[in-house]
Amino acid sequence: MRPSGRTASQIRPVTITRNFTCHAEGSVLVEFGNTKVLCNATVEEGVPRFMKGQGKGWITAEYSMLPRATHTRSQREAARGKQGGRTLEIQRLIARSLRAAVDLKMLGENTITLDCDVIQADGGTRTASITGACVAMVDALTYMRAKGILKTNPLKHMVAALSVGIYKGTPIADLEYIEDSVADTDMNVVMTETGHLIEVQGTAEAEPFSFDEMNEMLEIARQGLRELFDIQKAALA
Amino acid sequence: MRPSGRTASQIRPVTITRNFTCHAEGSVLVEFGNTKVLCNATVEEGVPRFMKGQGKGWITAEYSMLPRATHTRSQREAARGKQGGRTLEIQRLIARSLRAAVDLKMLGENTITLDCDVIQADGGTRTASITGACVAMVDALTYMRAKGILKTNPLKHMVAALSVGIYKGTPIADLEYIEDSVADTDMNVVMTETGHLIEVQGTAEAEPFSFDEMNEMLEIARQGLRELFDIQKAALA
Amino acid sequence: MRPSGRTASQIRPVTITRNFTCHAEGSVLVEFGNTKVLCNATVEEGVPRFMKGQGKGWITAEYSMLPRATHTRSQREAARGKQGGRTLEIQRLIARSLRAAVDLKMLGENTITLDCDVIQADGGTRTASITGACVAMVDALTYMRAKGILKTNPLKHMVAALSVGIYKGTPIADLEYIEDSVADTDMNVVMTETGHLIEVQGTAEAEPFSFDEMNEMLEIARQGLRELFDIQKAALA
Amino acid sequence: MRPSGRTASQIRPVTITRNFTCHAEGSVLVEFGNTKVLCNATVEEGVPRFMKGQGKGWITAEYSMLPRATHTRSQREAARGKQGGRTLEIQRLIARSLRAAVDLKMLGENTITLDCDVIQADGGTRTASITGACVAMVDALTYMRAKGILKTNPLKHMVAALSVGIYKGTPIADLEYIEDSVADTDMNVVMTETGHLIEVQGTAEAEPFSFDEMNEMLEIARQGLRELFDIQKAALA
Amino acid sequence: MRPSGRTASQIRPVTITRNFTCHAEGSVLVEFGNTKVLCNATVEEGVPRFMKGQGKGWITAEYSMLPRATHTRSQREAARGKQGGRTLEIQRLIARSLRAAVDLKMLGENTITLDCDVIQADGGTRTASITGACVAMVDALTYMRAKGILKTNPLKHMVAALSVGIYKGTPIADLEYIEDSVADTDMNVVMTETGHLIEVQGTAEAEPFSFDEMNEMLEIARQGLRELFDIQKAALA
Amino acid sequence: MRPSGRTASQIRPVTITRNFTCHAEGSVLVEFGNTKVLCNATVEEGVPRFMKGQGKGWITAEYSMLPRATHTRSQREAARGKQGGRTLEIQRLIARSLRAAVDLKMLGENTITLDCDVIQADGGTRTASITGACVAMVDALTYMRAKGILKTNPLKHMVAALSVGIYKGTPIADLEYIEDSVADTDMNVVMTETGHLIEVQGTAEAEPFSFDEMNEMLEIARQGLRELFDIQKAALA
Repeated sequence: MRPSGRTASQIRPVTITRNFTCHAEGSVLVEFGNTKVLCNATVEEGVPRFMKGQGKGWITAEYSMLPRATHTRSQREAARGKQGGRTLEIQRLIARSLRAAVDLKMLGENTITLDCDVIQADGGTRTASITGACVAMVDALTYMRAKGILKTNPLKHMVAALSVGIYKGTPIADLEYIEDSVADTDMNVVMTETGHLIEVQGTAEAEPFSFDEMNEMLEIARQGLRELFDIQKAALA
Repeated sequence: MRPSGRTASQIRPVTITRNFTCHAEGSVLVEFGNTKVLCNATVEEGVPRFMKGQGKGWITAEYSMLPRATHTRSQREAARGKQGGRTLEIQRLIARSLRAAVDLKMLGENTITLDCDVIQADGGTRTASITGACVAMVDALTYMRAKGILKTNPLKHMVAALSVGIYKGTPIADLEYIEDSVADTDMNVVMTETGHLIEVQGTAEAEPFSFDEMNEMLEIARQGLRELFDIQKAALA
Repeated sequence: MRPSGRTASQIRPVTITRNFTCHAEGSVLVEFGNTKVLCNATVEEGVPRFMKGQGKGWITAEYSMLPRATHTRSQREAARGKQGGRTLEIQRLIARSLRAAVDLKMLGENTITLDCDVIQADGGTRTASITGACVAMVDALTYMRAKGILKTNPLKHMVAALSVGIYKGTPIADLEYIEDSVADTDMNVVMTETGHLIEVQGTAEAEPFSFDEMNEMLEIARQGLRELFDIQKAALA
Repeated sequence: MRPSGRTASQIRPVTITRNFTCHAEGSVLVEFGNTKVLCNATVEEGVPRFMKGQGKGWITAEYSMLPRATHTRSQREAARGKQGGRTLEIQRLIARSLRAAVDLKMLGENTITLDCDVIQADGGTRTASITGACVAMVDALTYMRAKGILKTNPLKHMVAALSVGIYKGTPIADLEYIEDSVADTDMNVVMTETGHLIEVQGTAEAEPFSFDEMNEMLEIARQGLRELFDIQKAALA
Repeated sequence: MRPSGRTASQIRPVTITRNFTCHAEGSVLVEFGNTKVLCNATVEEGVPRFMKGQGKGWITAEYSMLPRATHTRSQREAARGKQGGRTLEIQRLIARSLRAAVDLKMLGENTITLDCDVIQADGGTRTASITGACVAMVDALTYMRAKGILKTNPLKHMVAALSVGIYKGTPIADLEYIEDSVADTDMNVVMTETGHLIEVQGTAEAEPFSFDEMNEMLEIARQGLRELFDIQKAALA
Repeated sequence: MRPSGRTASQIRPVTITRNFTCHAEGSVLVEFGNTKVLCNATVEEGVPRFMKGQGKGWITAEYSMLPRATHTRSQREAARGKQGGRTLEIQRLIARSLRAAVDLKMLGENTITLDCDVIQADGGTRTASITGACVAMVDALTYMRAKGILKTNPLKHMVAALSVGIYKGTPIADLEYIEDSVADTDMNVVMTETGHLIEVQGTAEAEPFSFDEMNEMLEIARQGLRELFDIQKAALA
């Protein structure tokens, strides 16, 4: 039994609030249970130096946890003078995932930056970030079309992400912190709404996992992700 | 006439939401109109090295704007590798203001850190931060008494802050961004509920101001601050 | 009674030595009693990126204390790898104060940098810096006119600064370190020679101060500043 | 057909040279074709602060590419003043993988650091690093037992890693640079000699991949990894 | 007697392996006994900003020790976030020495970067670096002529370097670590194959040295350097 | 002929002003012609971590140029966030030179820090720094004996430094900037008052130099250094 009483494949209540702040071209507060992430999408003309002259756009992401998003306060990265390895790893994952959702050629030489700031953390902040940032990005693309920056929609498909893991020997979906901290394996799955994989990152925290366990985890991820796509669609309706 | 239709001394609607996040010992979302700041108070045992062995506590603050809290995106300070001068100046002001509210001797060798993260900015983020952080700090002190860390309440008096300025020749209170960006003078006033001053920082952005204008600004600040103390009290009731 | 035997409103002996070093376009050693600051003005063509194309000039400042300007040695900021919050706060104040003295439009797309390096500290280093830097800047403007870079003088008015405070219950002017370290309130006042205010920064170090005390401090600042303007003028004669 | 003429599941010639340098407690040069990584293991008494007092050891890793390990020179991270996101991501992966190979309790409060420095790069530097570092770690553990630091062998099982990917529509093993740079998907698989998974990191570089492709890639990884375990064993014999 | 049994003026066996790695335009592994340094030369079009428009080329160098090149592990400079004073001092020396070997005018607006990475250290890493980097640079110049970037050879003369010192009262050549760590004086001599000096850096580690000792050290350096020039030539033959 | 009309071996007028600032345990303004360096000596109890428990003291140095000590303004290293290679190289030289003057065992576990801040530069700032810092250090040692921290004088001998070079084919002493910028060779010589060498650093800026030229430079350095020792002694009398 899970501490929350959820079934193995049951995800937490997910809410997606659009236009959470007023300045960004896309602004979404995404909640996976007690995990709350503010995802702001910014549209800027031009691309980074290494992309110039290719006629293609760029999508990048930055991730941060507010110092007191967690049980105990963690040091502010701006005060420490550098971003930690975990932060860099996560924001690279978010950016790759969202780039996979868009035809960069159709985006033209424009950049969309997704800022994912974790207001409150209870496990799954990176998967919530990807799921929410995709909605914020869609709003930003809509803005670009309304402003005449884009003629057509460069979105190839929606993208969402879910964490799965092996908890007390059983594969479960959408781990909250209390589960995550004792799970044997932790896996993040990023999928397209068409059922293809963008990223799979599985890590044995304690015991190595078998190929069969891997497949079971992928299967319950697939189920949960279908629900997330429905929730995204409802939010965008 | 002000863009919002407010009278010269009229402050914006102010709301203070306690327990905005679940982990911090005090967590307040403060809103001055469209300016929204999350103020989290963290209680930790011990004091910084330079305070050790004096039997006194310490109160410190960190301030940050989310990159897209403003009209255009500003670079994330953690990515840039250092906090800017404006950030450091503001967090030093917040910390000094709140230290003035507490008897550090009575706090014992404990530290309270106030994290003020601006979710959305529309002028007056530093004054909103101080006003909200004081409420979060009161909740943290209550927590400390409930946990038996403190026997008595070290709070000397509530503290609040308000911006005033000279806008088109007239002293006005609680400037929003559209006013602040063209004001001749900008002044931040931090006061105790007993009507004494903790900080006064007036800056001529364009034209120098007279001693009389200084007094007029102080006077309307005093009026607005009285309202803020009422709102703080109501929130804590 | 003050430790030095000075009256409440009496400032320390102030000397301004021009051409203290030979390379800078303006070079002033300013002494407020035992506080000694070297203020060098550098003229450079062009303006920072954010000012480009506006046809206006820029004035900026940097402040530093030599490690052993004080009773005990402080760590060298270059060795530590970053400037502290106090340093950034002070150099922002110096720069704002001097920008208020000059018509930036008339300055053309040129930059004047004021380097204020504290050789020896005994309280009031920021006010001495502003007072001395204004003279160095005037010399730099004279140089620019001699070189034909400027046709007319963009100086609007001289600027000077003085610290005042509440010491043992009494408002006093130009605090030296021994007074400053125990004062209840510390206030820095930057004024134009025409008697208008540019900056007022009052801080309750220990006890909050009343509106009346604020006014008394402003009044003795005004008196002391008149003397400083006379000393600046004599130095420039 | 692959550029090298290899079959889809064929790995490159792999050589493992022990005692490559003379000071480290374990020193291995590992070569996967033209990819050459020097893996040095250092044994130090004690553990990092966050591990103290738990009676457990620690295994950590650092990864770096020499600036000219690649076709064009990349900036030296020490000169740039920080390690990039890719570097941090890889060294975190190496460290996690090797920690999974050892019973940290049996290691006692000692730390083993694996330095993986890429001398020459041709794809698969992170999987070569893990495969070589495991051998260097075994030598370090042998050293610790010879010195009497350890009574028993804390090694749970050997660990090796292999990259697989989808190249021109076909799953292939051990991609070299020329394949990697155009592959649709890139996946790194870390396995124990007992056939369990430690890490699986699959990324769609261009086209998302199906669940079936995922399984095919895992299968050819499993085959190649068996060969790597044989090569490790031969090197240690 | 020296620990190795060498005579006072005898240098260690020196080997120079060209084409040690495959990507760099010049790649040399140089060994002075147990000291092993990988010297990679990179050719890039253009020059640093401060050299632009002078029609001259630039030669620069970077030096690093792998963390476990030494008996105990030293912290990785990239992880520490800055290069140490010793590193900067050495790489400045290498760069100056090699610039003295080349007619920068004839090099055109091209830059050669010499990366000297110490794989294993046993004294004399900076002199080995210079001696090996010169050979790598010659290979890079040959590459430039083969590619038609250069019409003529800008090499003025070969350059090599040797350490000498006062060990137990006697001047000796090419100190290994065990000698260097107890030597009274340590001197590095950089010479051209025509017998002129480029750099002489002598340091009294313990006792000051006389003018006569200085001359004796220079003399045995001259002898050893002649051998090094022969070895360089043989390697390039 | 030299621009100043000096003979080849003639040094500039040198003045040493003790007690230049009031807080440091030794404070010297040293002037070599237009080169002016403030050398402050600070005495602190204890030694750096790597020296602890050896019963020996430590002497260290920091060097900095004020941004406008030179013809054009150089960027402030504190603002840039790191000290440059030249700065680190020079402060390492100053520290080594002064350590050679003192019996560290007799110094006890105390640290003397020499801060050398260049107020105005006209060539030879590092040699002026060493010459002045030695006098400041002597004052600090006298202070330590007066305070009872030391029973005996740990000074072994005075130390001074002089630059020499090849200017238009002739060896000359004490180069000023106008000579230094076109000299073929630049050499810094640090000597004890007993005529022994501590450091010799010769660099061919343009043309390599012969062994004979090296000896000529050393000889005129020896002459000039004798004068510097007289000036130091007179200052300390």
